Amino acid sequence: MYVLLIYDIGVKRVSRMLKLCRGYLNWVQNSSFEGELSEVKLKELKSKAKKIMNEDEDSLLIYTSRDSRWLNRETIGVEKMPIDEFL
Amino acid sequence: MYVLLIYDIGVKRVSRMLKLCRGYLNWVQNSSFEGELSEVKLKELKSKAKKIMNEDEDSLLIYTSRDSRWLNRETIGVEKMPIDEFL
Repeated sequence: MYVLLIYDIGVKRVSRMLKLCRGYLNWVQNSSFEGELSEVKLKELKSKAKKIMNEDEDSLLIYTSRDSRWLNRETIGVEKMPIDEFL
Repeated sequence: MYVLLIYDIGVKRVSRMLKLCRGYLNWVQNSSFEGELSEVKLKELKSKAKKIMNEDEDSLLIYTSRDSRWLNRETIGVEKMPIDEFL
């Protein structure tokens, strides 16, 4: 399944979250990641993210689409991370 | 169509971009907006955004899905903008 992840994390925790997400998905823009993940890998990522987060302050939005073809992406301005091969 | 918009905008321009996007979509998290838009309205939003942006520095990612049912959203931690009625 195709995953799009956006986080809003406290400054003390954000570098650990960045490192974690980079291990699973492609960084596309500030606090935004994208890529193909299995159910198992997404579950793993979510449980690790919860260990980093302060769930009273931080926010993690995970969008999933069963097929990347159901999701179009358009970039205006700087393509921070050219990942044409993903979407 | 369902739209998800994420921006990474220079600090001098970000408040104008926030104001513009709030007029079309729902703020869901830092620099992230979501909601249903017609093709015409999306085109209008994009052309106004381009007038605000410095396209050599700023980045705007627009994800579209023909049907909101093709896109699931899960929130971990703080629901910054409870918009259950959207997705």
